[in-house]
Amino acid sequence: MALVVMAEGKAKYVFYFIGDGMGVNQVNGTETYMAAVEGRIGTSPLCFAQFPYVGLVTTYSGTNGVTDSAAGGTALATGNKTKNGALGVKADLTTRINSIAALAKSEGKAVGVTTSVSVDHATPASFYAHVKDRNMYHQIGKDLIAAGFDFYAGSDFLQPENNELSGNKDLYTQCREAGYTIARGYADYRKKAKKAGKMLLLQTETASKADRTSIAYAIDRQKNDLTLQDITRAAIHFLSQKDTDGFFLMVEGGKIDWACHSNDAATAFKEVIDMDNAIKVAYEFYEQHPDETLIIITADHETGGIVLGTGKYELHTDLLKYQKQSAGAFSKMIAAQHQKEGKKFTWDFVRKQLQDNFGFWSQIPLDDREAEQLKKAYENFCEGVAKDTKTLYESENIIASTARQLMARKAMVGWQSGGHSNGYVPVFAIGAGAEEFTGRIDNTEIPKKIAEIAGYKE
Amino acid sequence: MALVVMAEGKAKYVFYFIGDGMGVNQVNGTETYMAAVEGRIGTSPLCFAQFPYVGLVTTYSGTNGVTDSAAGGTALATGNKTKNGALGVKADLTTRINSIAALAKSEGKAVGVTTSVSVDHATPASFYAHVKDRNMYHQIGKDLIAAGFDFYAGSDFLQPENNELSGNKDLYTQCREAGYTIARGYADYRKKAKKAGKMLLLQTETASKADRTSIAYAIDRQKNDLTLQDITRAAIHFLSQKDTDGFFLMVEGGKIDWACHSNDAATAFKEVIDMDNAIKVAYEFYEQHPDETLIIITADHETGGIVLGTGKYELHTDLLKYQKQSAGAFSKMIAAQHQKEGKKFTWDFVRKQLQDNFGFWSQIPLDDREAEQLKKAYENFCEGVAKDTKTLYESENIIASTARQLMARKAMVGWQSGGHSNGYVPVFAIGAGAEEFTGRIDNTEIPKKIAEIAGYKE
Repeated sequence: MALVVMAEGKAKYVFYFIGDGMGVNQVNGTETYMAAVEGRIGTSPLCFAQFPYVGLVTTYSGTNGVTDSAAGGTALATGNKTKNGALGVKADLTTRINSIAALAKSEGKAVGVTTSVSVDHATPASFYAHVKDRNMYHQIGKDLIAAGFDFYAGSDFLQPENNELSGNKDLYTQCREAGYTIARGYADYRKKAKKAGKMLLLQTETASKADRTSIAYAIDRQKNDLTLQDITRAAIHFLSQKDTDGFFLMVEGGKIDWACHSNDAATAFKEVIDMDNAIKVAYEFYEQHPDETLIIITADHETGGIVLGTGKYELHTDLLKYQKQSAGAFSKMIAAQHQKEGKKFTWDFVRKQLQDNFGFWSQIPLDDREAEQLKKAYENFCEGVAKDTKTLYESENIIASTARQLMARKAMVGWQSGGHSNGYVPVFAIGAGAEEFTGRIDNTEIPKKIAEIAGYKE
Repeated sequence: MALVVMAEGKAKYVFYFIGDGMGVNQVNGTETYMAAVEGRIGTSPLCFAQFPYVGLVTTYSGTNGVTDSAAGGTALATGNKTKNGALGVKADLTTRINSIAALAKSEGKAVGVTTSVSVDHATPASFYAHVKDRNMYHQIGKDLIAAGFDFYAGSDFLQPENNELSGNKDLYTQCREAGYTIARGYADYRKKAKKAGKMLLLQTETASKADRTSIAYAIDRQKNDLTLQDITRAAIHFLSQKDTDGFFLMVEGGKIDWACHSNDAATAFKEVIDMDNAIKVAYEFYEQHPDETLIIITADHETGGIVLGTGKYELHTDLLKYQKQSAGAFSKMIAAQHQKEGKKFTWDFVRKQLQDNFGFWSQIPLDDREAEQLKKAYENFCEGVAKDTKTLYESENIIASTARQLMARKAMVGWQSGGHSNGYVPVFAIGAGAEEFTGRIDNTEIPKKIAEIAGYKE
């Protein structure tokens, strides 16, 4: 079973998209949803799912049958399995491992590492940090600066200040001192890009004040919110203007994972579509440089154990189109209204919110038992007897979680858990050396293949 | 996105393996289980999962978001989506569609259609039958004869007699009159093969008397039971001795699906390994004829919504090795012992059976609650208050189903339902034209690609 002859060093431009938590059926579910919205059984194509090469990727970590994002990211970044929780170090937690981003940098390429969550989160950090624990956010921020890549983007830093590690000098100051220009939002990037030597693109301070942990979900997006497509466009623009022999760019769709941790299918599928919109920007670049560009799309692990179909031989993903907010945002809205409306926070009021934001009763008929479940959730919420449901990255009150679960049942989308699974993730590839990415391969092989195709040397 | 140049007419020998119900994670789970048995985290390779090309296959039917085996089989056999339940006809239920087996036959190839379940079951039948309802088993048997392929194999016919359709002439008689030699078991095949013009290989009459619906699960196999490997070996032997320009052989691993309908992971993974053993025979043939042989492995749909991991970032598939029988066989054994032992059918007696057949207490420690669940199941069984659980193909008493569910929980293998899902299934390929089978493709494209590669014309 010999490999197809490789084109070593051919990939001058490398795009490495990582859909966090995007197992194979997150992709299939999204394409099925897209067709269902058009009123058809079947699939409607994502750009990246049409790429000519596909492989099935195993994701177990060095220590666990089911990986976390740190070990999964480290495997995809460095080609080494490590302990769950560790970033850029071997399972001994001390031996540092270089990522392909660092190799690309040594090779003289311009390098970008970007994400839709915070710049110090596990997946982006696995490309530049070397820490035993993914929660060492301030240290990770310092490692970001030390790596010295050309372009970083994400929502913000999670822990900009840390007296013990940095005295009174926060990470923004340290970034500036290291030669980084900090842009806040896409418009600000456009203004500052030309004069910048290195760039750190974050969301606006207003957005970070509301939630610094990530940019908004596609389903919840407001005007002027930074998007993954903005980030990709800015990255290509910035890295292309560098006087280097090509570039390496990692883009993480980080909130597919978050939506799947919350078992929120409508939100997850829209995040996959949103990452596809970012990939389309890379694909346009590929069309200009087809012989020198490699685009890889993969994932660090599957999240939630999504299953398309709950027993009957039917699927109703079309119903997900009636969901207008993420369950998390809906939860916040309901809680705020409860505060604000006082006595006007009646069942009729909440019922109207459920109708407007999930299509219940109006577009999605409910039987008595289902309607009763929602009403009971409202009553429990008002009486304060129901605890909020905590998912990994969010918290939901009982009205939101009941609505979300009911939507899943109606759409016939099943979830196994709020954690990760060991399910296969896909790798899709197009361009120079793409033929390497088929068959059943381990996640650690992906960066090795990229390095070989792009001519990065250890 | 141009396709790789094709080698039209190059595949003189075509092997088409269909793992019924074998979604991508049935494969991943099996390889994970194989490594776990060796005491390792990771995967241990199946032969077919190492094939150089992989694609992700969509399986929705013409009428349903989730297919059944009839519509799924028809898609894989004919390249047409149809109504769930229909075989070899379009969704109008009347327009007949030729399968690639029929095209191969017209092209002068020797043709074999084989399975580990009954020869008239949905998947094999989709290659030769044309009926609106997969349950028309006698008519399907008549279609088998009418198609006139060279070699059929499986457990038996489900409905050999039908006065209305065949008077007093059963299907065995009709087969013989049509020139088929009927062999009962592999030894009998070896005796009769040389003089046979066409061959129908069934399991022994003793085996059919016990259960005509299928050959035994690998996990339950007794000496002299017919196996899928026997069937594959016999098929290659028989088709090779024909004076034809190559052959087309379909082999169904039919009971992967049955084990998944029962959510019985140990049994399912051993069925995948068993199909791999059959594939190894084809792979040996490929090694002799690498330039003229194409081997395809795929599935008609995913069954059960299997998820590897139930929330914690762990997997314990190694524990499945302690399961010594399928849950169905264990259920039958327990019921028989209940009949036979009378007053000796004590909790201590049943506890010993659970220990011997699932490793509970001895190899798999149980906490008080778990032990109590099993004891309660025993008490309910004895009092006759618990109904048997019916899965699609089997029935389980409460002791067996409680043990099976407990085993799944300990191994951290999750299941969504007892039905099918719309999850991706894999296609693996090696040999002449194998490079065609990557990317995300629809099940209907597979037979079209095979026909093109093998030079079968409509």
